[in-house]
Amino acid sequence: MAVDQKKQPRDDEQLEKMRHSAAHVMAEAVQSIFPDAKFGIGPAIENGFYYDFELPRPLTPEDLPIIEARMKEIVASDVPFTTQSVTKEEARRLFATQPYKLELVDDIDGDSVGLYRQGSFVDLCRGPHVSSTGEIKAFRLVNTAGAYWRGEENRPMLQRIYGVAFDNEEALAEHLNRIEEAARRDHRKMGRELDLFSIHEEAGQGLVHWHPRGAVIRRVIEDFWKDEHTKRGYSLVYTPHIAKVNLWQTSGHWEFYRDNMYSPMEVEGQEYVVKPMNCLGHILMYKTKLHSYRELPLRYAELGTVYRFERSGVLHGLSRVRGFTQDDAHIFCRFDQLKDEVVGVLDLALFMINTFGFTNYQMLLSTRPEKYAGELKVWDEATETLKQALAESGIAYEIDPGEGVFYGPKIDIKFEDAVGRGWQGPTIQVDFNLPQRFDVTYAGEDGQEHPVAMVHRTVLGSMERFLASLIEHYGGAFPVWLAPVQVALLPIADRHMDYAYQLAEALKKDWIRVEVDARSERINQKIRQAQLDKTPYMLIVGDKEVATNTVSVRLRSGEQASDQPLERFMESIRVAIVDKARDLRL
Amino acid sequence: MAVDQKKQPRDDEQLEKMRHSAAHVMAEAVQSIFPDAKFGIGPAIENGFYYDFELPRPLTPEDLPIIEARMKEIVASDVPFTTQSVTKEEARRLFATQPYKLELVDDIDGDSVGLYRQGSFVDLCRGPHVSSTGEIKAFRLVNTAGAYWRGEENRPMLQRIYGVAFDNEEALAEHLNRIEEAARRDHRKMGRELDLFSIHEEAGQGLVHWHPRGAVIRRVIEDFWKDEHTKRGYSLVYTPHIAKVNLWQTSGHWEFYRDNMYSPMEVEGQEYVVKPMNCLGHILMYKTKLHSYRELPLRYAELGTVYRFERSGVLHGLSRVRGFTQDDAHIFCRFDQLKDEVVGVLDLALFMINTFGFTNYQMLLSTRPEKYAGELKVWDEATETLKQALAESGIAYEIDPGEGVFYGPKIDIKFEDAVGRGWQGPTIQVDFNLPQRFDVTYAGEDGQEHPVAMVHRTVLGSMERFLASLIEHYGGAFPVWLAPVQVALLPIADRHMDYAYQLAEALKKDWIRVEVDARSERINQKIRQAQLDKTPYMLIVGDKEVATNTVSVRLRSGEQASDQPLERFMESIRVAIVDKARDLRL
Repeated sequence: MAVDQKKQPRDDEQLEKMRHSAAHVMAEAVQSIFPDAKFGIGPAIENGFYYDFELPRPLTPEDLPIIEARMKEIVASDVPFTTQSVTKEEARRLFATQPYKLELVDDIDGDSVGLYRQGSFVDLCRGPHVSSTGEIKAFRLVNTAGAYWRGEENRPMLQRIYGVAFDNEEALAEHLNRIEEAARRDHRKMGRELDLFSIHEEAGQGLVHWHPRGAVIRRVIEDFWKDEHTKRGYSLVYTPHIAKVNLWQTSGHWEFYRDNMYSPMEVEGQEYVVKPMNCLGHILMYKTKLHSYRELPLRYAELGTVYRFERSGVLHGLSRVRGFTQDDAHIFCRFDQLKDEVVGVLDLALFMINTFGFTNYQMLLSTRPEKYAGELKVWDEATETLKQALAESGIAYEIDPGEGVFYGPKIDIKFEDAVGRGWQGPTIQVDFNLPQRFDVTYAGEDGQEHPVAMVHRTVLGSMERFLASLIEHYGGAFPVWLAPVQVALLPIADRHMDYAYQLAEALKKDWIRVEVDARSERINQKIRQAQLDKTPYMLIVGDKEVATNTVSVRLRSGEQASDQPLERFMESIRVAIVDKARDLRL
Repeated sequence: MAVDQKKQPRDDEQLEKMRHSAAHVMAEAVQSIFPDAKFGIGPAIENGFYYDFELPRPLTPEDLPIIEARMKEIVASDVPFTTQSVTKEEARRLFATQPYKLELVDDIDGDSVGLYRQGSFVDLCRGPHVSSTGEIKAFRLVNTAGAYWRGEENRPMLQRIYGVAFDNEEALAEHLNRIEEAARRDHRKMGRELDLFSIHEEAGQGLVHWHPRGAVIRRVIEDFWKDEHTKRGYSLVYTPHIAKVNLWQTSGHWEFYRDNMYSPMEVEGQEYVVKPMNCLGHILMYKTKLHSYRELPLRYAELGTVYRFERSGVLHGLSRVRGFTQDDAHIFCRFDQLKDEVVGVLDLALFMINTFGFTNYQMLLSTRPEKYAGELKVWDEATETLKQALAESGIAYEIDPGEGVFYGPKIDIKFEDAVGRGWQGPTIQVDFNLPQRFDVTYAGEDGQEHPVAMVHRTVLGSMERFLASLIEHYGGAFPVWLAPVQVALLPIADRHMDYAYQLAEALKKDWIRVEVDARSERINQKIRQAQLDKTPYMLIVGDKEVATNTVSVRLRSGEQASDQPLERFMESIRVAIVDKARDLRL
């Protein structure tokens, strides 16, 4: 899924206070417009703030400027924020008509609660806030959404208003531009416009159907992925999408992960489930024979499609789905090989995301959580090994204390797209749990069986989420090696059609993806369509090109080249494809 | 699944009579050894006969020669087969101690039943039989199996003895050799020996795990398949493995095909099932927009993994499974395009099976069954269209009357492997049902919406069954383009290891699949292993090769070539791979 929350550096504290204060000011503004409003909570969030309200009618987009105008008046009046501590009893009197606040009061430990007040508005709040409303700088209300009280589906649905707030108008404008650009690049919208994929209510939410053009991109990615893995000593495998529940009981998934698994099916008195992950099939294959220490590491790689239950409310295009294809692999190695294996995965992971054009990333090492499986000593050693691997790779990282999986420490890579949005990317997880539960061993040099070290890893995450990130990163204008249609052949008139098809055949022989626009449209219309499709190259074919047996090349940037022989064009597109070039050149 | 039954030509009638008579003689022999035997039925089958018995003890392989010897005495005594018709009353007296025969008597319509008698043995039988036991020629009892009375699981389990019978000893010997060869090539046995795949009781029967070496073969096949389909104007797509039950209710599968579908899973109050076929996802994608007549045909191709319930008793290695990947495609076209589309699929299908080395096949056109969907006129036209397509393709075919699917006529291709075993291969099915149920249309030249003609087709069948056929066809000695390991590098001593790895790297750069046998074994042992693995090429590397910077090539056939530069060997293996050559040459 898209990751919007980054750790904020400490100098953002002032900004956070200001955003929190803006939430209070918004609440005051709402109260002045809807005197019967009931108030939920209103925290600062990344880039801004929100507040949840129960209101007598649904808000419309037209309400936001009105609320915003009222907020500006409050800011202009520059009233101070003051704080006080009162007994719960007093707080209950104060919030007698505010059921949500009363609930919050009840939930607070101790006898007293904190209040914050600006002007006539008072809120239950621990703060901190800015000293006066005048300190609230550039802000904007951006949208509304429904939100269950306390996030619980059986509680009332409140109306949430989101705002953004920054130190100055420039920063606000830049942020709003980025939001607008992100909306323009929204992969759900682009997916429709470029005819890449669809999701159907009739088949089920969160289940992606890859259309021909989306599937072309996926195939290019998959082939590249398979080749690169083969080169690096991985073996491709395939495992089934369903398996007996028993297997997931042995693994512990049935106990710890059941909420994310589909309900079982019965087959001849046995219960089966669709797999939420690929590891168990790989373990079964590994265990078909006893492997010698000399055979390790074994690296099983699979583009494995898994199904996990997510509530329909959180599903989002390709980035949060119910079925997805992980670019998965499991490494079975000796503990003394673990560091080198992690170094290898780090190198592969960075190579992959870099090749796709992502150059900014954040590396996190997540350490032992409170609840964990395995021995402390093994945890410490493995965590140390991951640190050594990161150091040896010369990669800066942050530590996310206690955020490892219960079965082992892990490294996560979050990469950033062109509009600064963060995406969950590669992950490398050491697992002490499954080798033990399934007794996964190797025969050591000493003739004894030893437990293997097992690593789960993906280097793209999933095909679905990765396509989402690619679409938004490139705004649909994919590098030529990924573009579903690489060349649009645009005959000016019907008499140029034969030559266009002849060129298309020549290009197809070289596995270049071509489409001929054979519609009876004017050439400008055809160019416009290719532009909308974000096709990297257009070859415009008219009398002159037919007569001189040449092609006239136009890039989607609008740049054009004079007529040239087909061979010259083919040479340049070939180079762009092989180099996986990000920019097109003539 | 493997198809063992072929239509027998009429001159096999005599052979069939003889096999049926052999079953009676076997029953007489069994009765003479087990006087209390209860008799089930004993028909002629392809290549031989069987009879089902209830016996006081389980048969062992040692029993068969004894029964066979007794049969030979009966044949040598040359007693006539005589027939008579008796009332059911008489038959019931005659079979008073034979409960299964009594049940058969009850089930026969009319008042009289037919008997056949040889010597003292009398059986309930309509015949026909040969005139005397002496006419029974070469036969052999081959094995025993359990068989439920009338094939019903809640009825008693009887013991079935299978025999084979032919006109002469040569034909019998040839057949037995073929059985033996087939057993040697059994894909379940070879799959283990060559480490290609496994099926795990823990994960569930009929669910195939493709090991690295099997997965390599699958990837080669899939890449070839995808490229060939792309060349021929198909678009690859991907669809999910689960979908709402509703969708299958609309299609009619839930009504007509439910026994072969898995039980539903519940997700947020909606029922989902794992898909038994890929068509519905393709239809949903097609319907995301209204297609013009100019856009057709659209050909959506998918390597789609489907799950179908089969009773555990009928599961068999890779050839009958519960989860399999169909090399599926659905063609949406106008009716006036149907013939050309079928011609195209026939060409592709024969090209595919031919490329994989299958040259003998049988083509069947299955026509309208008694229960059918759609209009009679459309059926007749479509059937005529299939005939025209076959005629235009110059392909001989037989008609299988009434064996079409309820939704349309179809063409099936059964191909034969090297030991004469038949395999269900490509299938081409016209479908009148789904386009109607899902209202799948296109915008015609007249501006109106018209129903599309829809074709379901596979050209290999499934990845699983096709791999089974390949294994048995080649006895595991795959052509070099399919071989999981193409070159085994065999260093004679440890001091040749570096050179071996150096050669391996050079070969891998060219995507040649190489393994270095780095074990501390004698060279003969290494050759033996490569031979067992059926690796096409071995490169033996010793002092001479290191000194002269050459390789010494050995084929799995044992043929050897003198030392040559690596480049020369690479050139010849490259040619063999590109040509998809079946035979290896030096």
